[in-house]
Amino acid sequence: MEKKLQELKTRLLEIDDLNKANAMLIWDQSTYMPEGGAQARGRHSATLARLAQEKFVDPAIGRLLDELQPYAESLPYDSDDASLIRVTRREYERATRIPPKFIGELYEHQAKAYQVWTEARPANDFSRIQPLLEKTLDYSRQMADYFPGYDHIIDPLIDFADYGMKASSISALFAELRRELMPLVQVITSQPPADDSCLRKHYPEAEQMAISKKIAAILGYDFKRGRLDLTHHPFEINFSVGDVRITTRVKENLLGECLYSVIHEAGHAMYEQGVDPKLEGTPMCGGTSAGVHESQSRLWENIVGRSLEFTEFFYPRLQKAFPSQLGDTPLETFYRAINKVERSLIRTDADEVTYNLHVMLRFEFEMALLEGQLSVRDLPEAWRERYRQDIGILPPDDKDGVLQDVHWYAGVIGGSFQGYTLGNILSALFYQAALRAHPEIPSEIRRGKFDKLHNWLIENIYRHGSKFTADELVQRVDGGKIRVGPYIQYLKTKYGQLYTL
Amino acid sequence: MEKKLQELKTRLLEIDDLNKANAMLIWDQSTYMPEGGAQARGRHSATLARLAQEKFVDPAIGRLLDELQPYAESLPYDSDDASLIRVTRREYERATRIPPKFIGELYEHQAKAYQVWTEARPANDFSRIQPLLEKTLDYSRQMADYFPGYDHIIDPLIDFADYGMKASSISALFAELRRELMPLVQVITSQPPADDSCLRKHYPEAEQMAISKKIAAILGYDFKRGRLDLTHHPFEINFSVGDVRITTRVKENLLGECLYSVIHEAGHAMYEQGVDPKLEGTPMCGGTSAGVHESQSRLWENIVGRSLEFTEFFYPRLQKAFPSQLGDTPLETFYRAINKVERSLIRTDADEVTYNLHVMLRFEFEMALLEGQLSVRDLPEAWRERYRQDIGILPPDDKDGVLQDVHWYAGVIGGSFQGYTLGNILSALFYQAALRAHPEIPSEIRRGKFDKLHNWLIENIYRHGSKFTADELVQRVDGGKIRVGPYIQYLKTKYGQLYTL
Repeated sequence: MEKKLQELKTRLLEIDDLNKANAMLIWDQSTYMPEGGAQARGRHSATLARLAQEKFVDPAIGRLLDELQPYAESLPYDSDDASLIRVTRREYERATRIPPKFIGELYEHQAKAYQVWTEARPANDFSRIQPLLEKTLDYSRQMADYFPGYDHIIDPLIDFADYGMKASSISALFAELRRELMPLVQVITSQPPADDSCLRKHYPEAEQMAISKKIAAILGYDFKRGRLDLTHHPFEINFSVGDVRITTRVKENLLGECLYSVIHEAGHAMYEQGVDPKLEGTPMCGGTSAGVHESQSRLWENIVGRSLEFTEFFYPRLQKAFPSQLGDTPLETFYRAINKVERSLIRTDADEVTYNLHVMLRFEFEMALLEGQLSVRDLPEAWRERYRQDIGILPPDDKDGVLQDVHWYAGVIGGSFQGYTLGNILSALFYQAALRAHPEIPSEIRRGKFDKLHNWLIENIYRHGSKFTADELVQRVDGGKIRVGPYIQYLKTKYGQLYTL
Repeated sequence: MEKKLQELKTRLLEIDDLNKANAMLIWDQSTYMPEGGAQARGRHSATLARLAQEKFVDPAIGRLLDELQPYAESLPYDSDDASLIRVTRREYERATRIPPKFIGELYEHQAKAYQVWTEARPANDFSRIQPLLEKTLDYSRQMADYFPGYDHIIDPLIDFADYGMKASSISALFAELRRELMPLVQVITSQPPADDSCLRKHYPEAEQMAISKKIAAILGYDFKRGRLDLTHHPFEINFSVGDVRITTRVKENLLGECLYSVIHEAGHAMYEQGVDPKLEGTPMCGGTSAGVHESQSRLWENIVGRSLEFTEFFYPRLQKAFPSQLGDTPLETFYRAINKVERSLIRTDADEVTYNLHVMLRFEFEMALLEGQLSVRDLPEAWRERYRQDIGILPPDDKDGVLQDVHWYAGVIGGSFQGYTLGNILSALFYQAALRAHPEIPSEIRRGKFDKLHNWLIENIYRHGSKFTADELVQRVDGGKIRVGPYIQYLKTKYGQLYTL
């Protein structure tokens, strides 16, 4: 049995090596690769992905998992070995259900669709991408149909990102959240908008990067096991527990873009840096779901980073870094500026309160498209109407409407958005659990101390990697189920102090 | 036949993808990887190397080569397909002769020896590395013995780097060169040394990098297909014809270190950028031998970069970049400074004239060690004695003596040094051939025009990749054999103008 387990681990390690080498190629492609490198890089990356996939769907892995099943069942559920076999089996079954030929075709289609989207968006021309998006919808349905027995056709697609969640459970959470958010947005936006002119001055790139780096390190992101670079879109990527990198972008006329992106990505990265090194080289080494991953980026970015306590610690340092820009701006003004709530067009620029409305309407469009209740042709119009209703703003064009997010144009339709809002919901739930264990956390944050929170997160979430599902993690730290309450309470408390609710 | 050829190409392309992905990991390791990434990176890199090796020694490749042999023989020798089959067969036979088990053991030993060397060198303690170096010598002999039928035991090891060269042919070239160099060094160093104080001022890193980058681009290094970064030791590395990167280091108290390293590495890189893209993904895509590769770095660094013509073009620009440091230094002084000849301890810091003496004594030590004429134990003393004799300087310690170069401590003994001097010999031979075709090249260099030389090199050397051996390339461009004459003539002409010979 020991020998079989060793063989499984050896095979998984080789696959992980290929995947992590591929991640390196992707990091370089986004950071330092000269333009001439693109063509061959695509080929190198595709080869590594194909080899890793071939090695993972090898029937020998299925046999090993079958042979090891009795051993797994003899061990405690949360032991490393039982979890390895359980998590690997889940991934193996998922990977072997989809025919390699289908994956090849889908990848080729996605590459083409992405290419056309990069042209259609600036041209504000949905019709150019429409036939490809229709094909993407077909592929998405076909993908789901490789996993028969679902309650809703989107469920298998959700499973890829947020294992165990379903259309029904997510819809219930989202409906409750929406009921609370709609009047909240209404009452906030009927009041005078916060003055954020203090953020809209000239902030040189080098200084923004320097202070962002310093803050990420203070929060707990370990630069000996990571680094920060500039890219077009911020992201986190990892090659091992010892090498978890983040990127950001800088707008010199908007303070905050860089800083809060860095805190956001550092949140993702602290999760990955905090995984137990014993899990390295296995499918368990990494965040457990899109929602839980996003809960960590949002916890650090919003619940910590945009809190009054953190601002009290951090703002005097920021003023020192930018004396001419912020010297005369009181903390209160800055705090209101970084928490300004407004009806806006673009999801990624949206504030904490309205953000989830952007996400939830996308999730509902995904369901409607997959169900056949909405056609791709009618999507742009439906998008505009829904923005008018939910966000209270009518998109002037498709460029900043239905074409704004890359997800559907480079992936499948279904499963790619719910994690953002699940992340917000979970961030408050986890933070509340941390506060129950350590009520002194807010006052420590005010003093620039983040160890207690960070260590609680490592102990209760990070070190487990994907040993536990999101549901299991919530059960362990909270005793209950995923629920919206803590997040609503967090928003109402915070924005109740900022506005008259 | 077409199908078999296609299958061979597909297999070779996959192997190349793995090797180029691995090169990316190595580049990152030397440039931007945080220290925490080292452990996993070593594993990722070893896995890619092992997979590439396993795929290359697959008997299926041997069978394809056998089946394609009649087809290759029906084609012109220099056709792409005939060359692909010929070059792949050479590499395949070499790769399949060495048992994988031996390679595994050797790599492990080398990693250990390298680690110990990094400690033994600063501690000036040869005894610490001696037993490991003795083992390296055993491995080196064993490696050679996988290729029986050699004239000299070093010949198979030379073949890895400089295919087709032998102990006998190299010894004959080196003996002739040594006969000419010894009196040349003698007469030059008996004259007052050049004043190089103009190079030993404060030159800020950013400015050194900026002008080095500009010069590399002017010479013909294409930054759209490459980039320049800082590393501990300068190197060139490539991932495709479209992505050929170089690195350098900067000493702020020594102008030249950065600049001429950049030109040197840009020379290597222009060779790789100039390979016909049709050869990409095959074993032919890349410089043909260590000697020919080094001929291009040295041609651009020394024959062009340290020439009077180039200095006349470049020095006024350099003065403009560093007005306070160089404003009062006449061109003549600068030109003499960058060509200062002196007896010195360290190979990599040596000037153009004495450099080859450093290389040749290493080559002779390799032969003596492999023959058993010299024991590892006696090497440090032999080193000191030979430096006294050849270079005219007695190394004060082993740190800057026998421990100075990494090659023997991270590789095998044999085959790693001859390429440096072959490169110098070939650089002059190729440049002479280029001048025969375009006598106006020197006057163009004086005007900052490098296309004619660059294009001649692309046409006659670069585009062929490793389709032709070094001997074949020389035969094609010169009509004769590798010989020392042009290099001696180049040195005597250049240094005859600088010193009284």
